[in-house]
Amino acid sequence: MNIILLQDADFVSAERVQLTGRRLEHVCKVHRAVVGDELRVGKVNGLMGRGTILSLTDQQLELDIFLDQPPPAPSPITLLLALPRPKMLKRVLQSVSSLGVKQIYLLNSYRVDKSFWGSPLLEEEKLQEQLLLGLEQARDTIVPQVTLCPRFKPFVEDELPGITAGSVAYVAHPGVEMVCPHALDQKITLAIGPEGGFIPYEIEKLQGCGFIPVSLGERILRVETAVPVLLSRLHL
Amino acid sequence: MNIILLQDADFVSAERVQLTGRRLEHVCKVHRAVVGDELRVGKVNGLMGRGTILSLTDQQLELDIFLDQPPPAPSPITLLLALPRPKMLKRVLQSVSSLGVKQIYLLNSYRVDKSFWGSPLLEEEKLQEQLLLGLEQARDTIVPQVTLCPRFKPFVEDELPGITAGSVAYVAHPGVEMVCPHALDQKITLAIGPEGGFIPYEIEKLQGCGFIPVSLGERILRVETAVPVLLSRLHL
Repeated sequence: MNIILLQDADFVSAERVQLTGRRLEHVCKVHRAVVGDELRVGKVNGLMGRGTILSLTDQQLELDIFLDQPPPAPSPITLLLALPRPKMLKRVLQSVSSLGVKQIYLLNSYRVDKSFWGSPLLEEEKLQEQLLLGLEQARDTIVPQVTLCPRFKPFVEDELPGITAGSVAYVAHPGVEMVCPHALDQKITLAIGPEGGFIPYEIEKLQGCGFIPVSLGERILRVETAVPVLLSRLHL
Repeated sequence: MNIILLQDADFVSAERVQLTGRRLEHVCKVHRAVVGDELRVGKVNGLMGRGTILSLTDQQLELDIFLDQPPPAPSPITLLLALPRPKMLKRVLQSVSSLGVKQIYLLNSYRVDKSFWGSPLLEEEKLQEQLLLGLEQARDTIVPQVTLCPRFKPFVEDELPGITAGSVAYVAHPGVEMVCPHALDQKITLAIGPEGGFIPYEIEKLQGCGFIPVSLGERILRVETAVPVLLSRLHL
């Protein structure tokens, strides 16, 4: 937790918040803070700044806050990700959120196990939890938007053209000749398949939407490694 | 397991191997292979090729093998990594191994918890296990060398100059102005600190060895995200 994120409900007045639970515990146990200390804070989807500890007990932390700094610039990459298995999804959401991606589409694909769509992790509240962990890590306040796309074909045909508009679009496809470019200075849409990859039909449909298949050479990477590798290489 | 890795002990003759245990199970359950099928195989620290199934029972898999392809090119990056907590170390070793890094130094640092050095994961055999998982993922055969460096100062003073010779050396240090470069075409040594970063004394010592502090902008990343991000950005 490199920044304490504040929700609307935490505010008791315009400049004062009261915190309990996980954030209180972190301030006591990790920061070992005392009254008068300053902590780095940020308002969810708002500005960042400093909070001064007014009072601190086992039950509650009260901060006087001053917010004046914008959050870091977002990544210009929109991510389409074939839905990974729940355990991996957790880690991937945290890492993608920490890397500043703000638009995430979780996509069905032939090789996505149907059971993954029933995971409780896909509930709005659980998704938010993972995304906030990523923001707390990276010192960011802007919560990424996650859209669930459980039907591949209608999503690609009806919605994807609007999403990719104005961007260059790549799909990671191990084995193709074209190697993923470095350090582009423009809006990018990046599609990453499931373990085992997108099937040829899916690649064709994405190509029909303007996606260019690119690889990272001969190596096959796990999704949780491929995601930061590709995000970092294309831009960051 | 995108390649079946063969050890010397598996060979019953120059062109025949017998496999049991985890690899047998994978071939049965995931590949659902039958006699006559061809599987992708590689000899640990040797060539890659194909294995044809001669016989397959619950107890044993026998393959006729033909090895003629070199493994993928290694990464030109030597990695110095402050020893992460054991759970994270597992994932990081797998991911670093899958990314083709062949020289890994696990380093002590002021912010490395002393207990991490007592982890059973640091035993030779356990390290090998994680590294092989990374090679099996990426389709590589060359096992990375892992060196444990539990004393920072003597390592940096006595051994590091020999390790960095002929390479450009960077240390990831959030907060510095200079941003990590992209896509270098040369030998690189990369140092990554613990959660919380190297302390100023450690940065100075590394700078004394020619390391240039670089950042990835304002975001603070977890070690398991920073490692693939930096490896990918500097080269891959």
